[in-house]
Amino acid sequence: MGIGNRKLRMIMVGGGPGAGIARVHRAAALMDNEYELVAGAFSSNPEKSKKMGEELYIDPDRAYGSWEEMLDKENALPADKRPDVVCIVTPNHMHYAPAKRALELGFHVVMDKPITVNLEQALDLRECVRKSGKALALTHAYAACSTVKLARDLVKQGRLGALTKIVVEYPQGWLNRLAEREDSAATWRTDPALAGSGCVGDIGTHAANLSETITGMRITSVAADVGTVVSGRKADDDFTALARWNDNVRGSVQASQISSGEGNGLNIRVYGTDAGLFWTHREMESLTIIAQDRPLEKWGRNTSYANAASPAAARAARCYADHAEGYLEEFANVYYNLARTIRCLDAGQTPSELDLDFPNVEDGIRGLAFVEACLESSRNDSAWTAVKKY
Amino acid sequence: MGIGNRKLRMIMVGGGPGAGIARVHRAAALMDNEYELVAGAFSSNPEKSKKMGEELYIDPDRAYGSWEEMLDKENALPADKRPDVVCIVTPNHMHYAPAKRALELGFHVVMDKPITVNLEQALDLRECVRKSGKALALTHAYAACSTVKLARDLVKQGRLGALTKIVVEYPQGWLNRLAEREDSAATWRTDPALAGSGCVGDIGTHAANLSETITGMRITSVAADVGTVVSGRKADDDFTALARWNDNVRGSVQASQISSGEGNGLNIRVYGTDAGLFWTHREMESLTIIAQDRPLEKWGRNTSYANAASPAAARAARCYADHAEGYLEEFANVYYNLARTIRCLDAGQTPSELDLDFPNVEDGIRGLAFVEACLESSRNDSAWTAVKKY
Amino acid sequence: MGIGNRKLRMIMVGGGPGAGIARVHRAAALMDNEYELVAGAFSSNPEKSKKMGEELYIDPDRAYGSWEEMLDKENALPADKRPDVVCIVTPNHMHYAPAKRALELGFHVVMDKPITVNLEQALDLRECVRKSGKALALTHAYAACSTVKLARDLVKQGRLGALTKIVVEYPQGWLNRLAEREDSAATWRTDPALAGSGCVGDIGTHAANLSETITGMRITSVAADVGTVVSGRKADDDFTALARWNDNVRGSVQASQISSGEGNGLNIRVYGTDAGLFWTHREMESLTIIAQDRPLEKWGRNTSYANAASPAAARAARCYADHAEGYLEEFANVYYNLARTIRCLDAGQTPSELDLDFPNVEDGIRGLAFVEACLESSRNDSAWTAVKKY
Amino acid sequence: MGIGNRKLRMIMVGGGPGAGIARVHRAAALMDNEYELVAGAFSSNPEKSKKMGEELYIDPDRAYGSWEEMLDKENALPADKRPDVVCIVTPNHMHYAPAKRALELGFHVVMDKPITVNLEQALDLRECVRKSGKALALTHAYAACSTVKLARDLVKQGRLGALTKIVVEYPQGWLNRLAEREDSAATWRTDPALAGSGCVGDIGTHAANLSETITGMRITSVAADVGTVVSGRKADDDFTALARWNDNVRGSVQASQISSGEGNGLNIRVYGTDAGLFWTHREMESLTIIAQDRPLEKWGRNTSYANAASPAAARAARCYADHAEGYLEEFANVYYNLARTIRCLDAGQTPSELDLDFPNVEDGIRGLAFVEACLESSRNDSAWTAVKKY
Repeated sequence: MGIGNRKLRMIMVGGGPGAGIARVHRAAALMDNEYELVAGAFSSNPEKSKKMGEELYIDPDRAYGSWEEMLDKENALPADKRPDVVCIVTPNHMHYAPAKRALELGFHVVMDKPITVNLEQALDLRECVRKSGKALALTHAYAACSTVKLARDLVKQGRLGALTKIVVEYPQGWLNRLAEREDSAATWRTDPALAGSGCVGDIGTHAANLSETITGMRITSVAADVGTVVSGRKADDDFTALARWNDNVRGSVQASQISSGEGNGLNIRVYGTDAGLFWTHREMESLTIIAQDRPLEKWGRNTSYANAASPAAARAARCYADHAEGYLEEFANVYYNLARTIRCLDAGQTPSELDLDFPNVEDGIRGLAFVEACLESSRNDSAWTAVKKY
Repeated sequence: MGIGNRKLRMIMVGGGPGAGIARVHRAAALMDNEYELVAGAFSSNPEKSKKMGEELYIDPDRAYGSWEEMLDKENALPADKRPDVVCIVTPNHMHYAPAKRALELGFHVVMDKPITVNLEQALDLRECVRKSGKALALTHAYAACSTVKLARDLVKQGRLGALTKIVVEYPQGWLNRLAEREDSAATWRTDPALAGSGCVGDIGTHAANLSETITGMRITSVAADVGTVVSGRKADDDFTALARWNDNVRGSVQASQISSGEGNGLNIRVYGTDAGLFWTHREMESLTIIAQDRPLEKWGRNTSYANAASPAAARAARCYADHAEGYLEEFANVYYNLARTIRCLDAGQTPSELDLDFPNVEDGIRGLAFVEACLESSRNDSAWTAVKKY
Repeated sequence: MGIGNRKLRMIMVGGGPGAGIARVHRAAALMDNEYELVAGAFSSNPEKSKKMGEELYIDPDRAYGSWEEMLDKENALPADKRPDVVCIVTPNHMHYAPAKRALELGFHVVMDKPITVNLEQALDLRECVRKSGKALALTHAYAACSTVKLARDLVKQGRLGALTKIVVEYPQGWLNRLAEREDSAATWRTDPALAGSGCVGDIGTHAANLSETITGMRITSVAADVGTVVSGRKADDDFTALARWNDNVRGSVQASQISSGEGNGLNIRVYGTDAGLFWTHREMESLTIIAQDRPLEKWGRNTSYANAASPAAARAARCYADHAEGYLEEFANVYYNLARTIRCLDAGQTPSELDLDFPNVEDGIRGLAFVEACLESSRNDSAWTAVKKY
Repeated sequence: MGIGNRKLRMIMVGGGPGAGIARVHRAAALMDNEYELVAGAFSSNPEKSKKMGEELYIDPDRAYGSWEEMLDKENALPADKRPDVVCIVTPNHMHYAPAKRALELGFHVVMDKPITVNLEQALDLRECVRKSGKALALTHAYAACSTVKLARDLVKQGRLGALTKIVVEYPQGWLNRLAEREDSAATWRTDPALAGSGCVGDIGTHAANLSETITGMRITSVAADVGTVVSGRKADDDFTALARWNDNVRGSVQASQISSGEGNGLNIRVYGTDAGLFWTHREMESLTIIAQDRPLEKWGRNTSYANAASPAAARAARCYADHAEGYLEEFANVYYNLARTIRCLDAGQTPSELDLDFPNVEDGIRGLAFVEACLESSRNDSAWTAVKKY
């Protein structure tokens, strides 16, 4: 029995009280009326999980104390109750196992990035996805912003000419002190055993992914300076890398968690022989095109001219132009296209390019390869180091 | 039997295919996991309503061809199915009747602004609310923005000193041509019979409401210049009004639908004896405080210092600071506080001030009184005209 | 004997120690190498005038204690020493007499605005200019900004379509307290006897002039709300006026000296049937064009495309594009075109339109007529009042 | 005979018709009434030099066809005519010889950067300065901006805490095509024989100098990626360098001449343990301070609080706050402090720290050492390379 005309049923691994990113995932999944949250292993503490389920108006029987129990029991439910999608919002070291198990049981998966804490796990998940025939979405959500899709399509159409230089940055300041002790979000993110890597993995991968999404190119080598600025910290918290895209386009990737005062300043500049493009998360209602011989242009989200240039950007916009979409809507764009893809797969159809327009396991693997190359370069006195293809 | 631990059940009047604002309402209601949409009279065309219900995964039996039928049938459902809230997103002239009936049947109501097309209807709805004991929320959504609540609370704490001047503007450009014929959203908004008034009612009321929300003051008189710029148009499409707040604070209110190139530029400046405050929907992640003798300050949404200054602003923020909330989240703030209020009322408790922090029938009445005064002043050569208190 | 190949010789009335605007005039006159300052009556206190002359490296014999003495003595100098231009930077009530006398003696005049403290004086100066055949420049310097000239020329070329709405504002905050007692710049500016009017005359005229410069239209009527916000002040310090340009274009003019925290925020928005234009002194390196159906455009000062569209803007730019010109350069643009005009007149040639592109006595008269209408309207309960043509 | 109470007499090497930077120097020198231009070797073509002298109202006998002739003849003039200062605005390869000769003859020198085309010349000039006892100012003009001085002083006062990261960038786009053939400013700047180096020397040195000025630290090593993006070009036109300041503060320096659409986007971010600071030439009226736990602050030029924090910034501001100073005024700040220093030296006094606050030969030497290290690193596969101390 296929899904038919009903919402997709989602269950959640992680996302207990105070888990900020889980709240983002829930809002993103719910807002387009495509998913309903029916169960969760919100915490490894059964009490807390139960409590969270109650807050979310979930059937008490479906708030579990372990994800293993949840997957087994939910998998065994009859077709009119069995979930379609597993959402994984645990700390990084807890991504791999539930994702693998979910795919093996035939669930679709949506999970936070980085995909796993090492490449071996990621490559194995790629195999799981292949075998299962199910969809896996990775919430590199910035790449799903309407104006990022517009940027990508304008670049693809040659509006900048041949690309010549790329500068991408992700400055944050929230770890400018040794916050590990008081802030649980900081605790696991700065522990390499739980997070895989620190700044490079947590937000450097967003910067790298954004550059690859917009340009359609791949980072092929880096000369990286990765450091730990705050004394007593276990993981890296700042890095800059000289980089090459597709072997010949030069530029740099920078991210930081110790840039005091910075909030969430992800931004990118892409230059071509004819024009340059600027996008920042701070002004995601528009992107900017600059050239020497004509006025600077701001292209607005969900305007007639932007939608004419990019059907993917048009689909990824809900509110009227100039009415401000944001972070939640970026995540919702991943969830929406995943829903469309799941329905196609369920119906035995091939999802369209528009449907498949969400980050997936390949983005996850490339992210980890980027981390691997940066760390190796930095250990080797910033020597140029190839980003391996897997 | 009370609501207990389940989501609130919402049914919708209006919101058929292509209805932009209805999509906004649905996303706003759904994203915080507090409501589920269970029925709708999405169109007076039963076919279309049925079709829309299907797209929204609603039980085919609960997609109705008339709101009267819906209210009657849904009202008759057993307690474990009967809805809690009626959402009204029809053109303005269709606000009053379903709202009145819904209140009479004991439903809570959430509706788009302006509340009705005339004051008589609005005053009657006030009576209906009083008699019913139910909640009515009006989606003056801008007033529900986290940084607007912050602005309001900073003003209340005296951070600007005594207020001296207010300038509020709402420029739009989408009606700079006679779009009435091709654009259905334009058609009814420019027909006084269906909309009540044009620019003053549609967006001037937002500007007026924003100024009253932030300052805690009331507009007491206006000298208005209301005009129809586009030849052939039936309603007003542009106005400026000299204004007084609380009889002694001077300033102006301006709104326009013919300011070519403008999107949705609602903004306000409030000056006091000590400092000034600037807020614009275009940069709703922050508000700006200026003074002669210290640096300009930008207060960020959901920061530690902003949340310490305003619990209401803290509640009205989902995403981390600098992560961009937007238009949908403004609406969601109305829905969230309404949900909290409904649960209190249902449990026989008194809702807190934080719970009741959403625009209501009084805001709707004051909006219409503002429209009335502007139109009268303009007919009278912009003579100063009192805004009546009802 | 004509001027020939030498700099113009300028003498100054006013501009003693601490006179900020005089320093601006001197820098503006000097920077393009077209003028030299050879004498001054910098203060009515001969000691102070002498001291100032010394600081300015002026021949001690040419630092005078009264402007009457200076004009007489300098007028009597032989042709190889006699000045060409008199610069008047006194408080407003001291504009008229020296300007009149200078013209009568055959000097060219450059003077600060407002031209005089009343219309009678201004109309008389117009006669003096006519009789003398000399040039008179009025430093409505904002109108001389390169990007303002660009705006004017783009409007003239029809790039906005037919104009429909104008909003011009000049908010300042420096008089938000009773600064009259400690700040000499405040003392005379808030004394109607010395300044003519307060806020309307001091900066409202700049706003009005900017709107007329850019649009080529004239303000024909106003409905004004002029007030004195700070208790104990003699002059007006805040106003808003509903306005009409050329009888049919609606909009508003606003200026304030009590808008706490505001510095010098002159800005204007001009809307037409096709597009809108935004300029602000805060970002004078560019102007912004907006339209519904294409990206927002920023036109940069001294760019190839801007200069192609406006020769006057090209002439009014010194530094490379994006290298920041400012307030001094606006004044310098007045001085430069005045110098070109003076040389033409001196050589018996007709100055070109580019040479004559500086504010003159007519701008001064229109400014005073605007003040007159605003004050009359405000006395008359903001009734619509015609701006008289003189 | 000392200088006494007169303007300083300046003569110019270079600056013929169309030389943009010479116009900047002249305006900067003239605007504060401290210098007069009395002679020039504006071109090696005597006709052109004569013509330029005429345009500048210079005595025809003092417009020379060679700088050697000018220096000899002007040096021989009697004390009441002999110049004080030689201004050198030739292409880079013509900086050294006239500067050396001018110092040997006992003139003060002001010259454009880079100081010379190689370190040997620069070190020799240092010796010439020492022997002559004269002043040499180098127009690293950005460092002389009022808000840059403010930034420097705030950092020195510890407002950011201990510094942790620096990112400085100078993107330009004007050489994004092979403009060498048609644009004379491009011709010599892209010829290593005439310019010394390309992008690194022309604007990379500005970025490096800005970082050292604000932080008070020195760049100690770089790992640089220097490239020539435009095919057929002889010099480098783009680079990024990982960098260390004072051996332990990490960050990067980036400059480009091929970043299409960029104008003159010099900007810097400096982070410390407590706060971050942002300055950009695009918004030089203010600097921005950010921290995690308080509102973002914009400190305005020439405000009461900024001037209280930095006397040097106060001195470097002419216009009222928020009235826009710019590029010319940055240069004028160098000229003004140089004038004060020259007068002190002339009077046998020791110039104060405020007087000596202008870039000098040491800045020039450090700039060339930075270029040397970047080029060597890049030749060596971006290996970390020390910036030598000279």
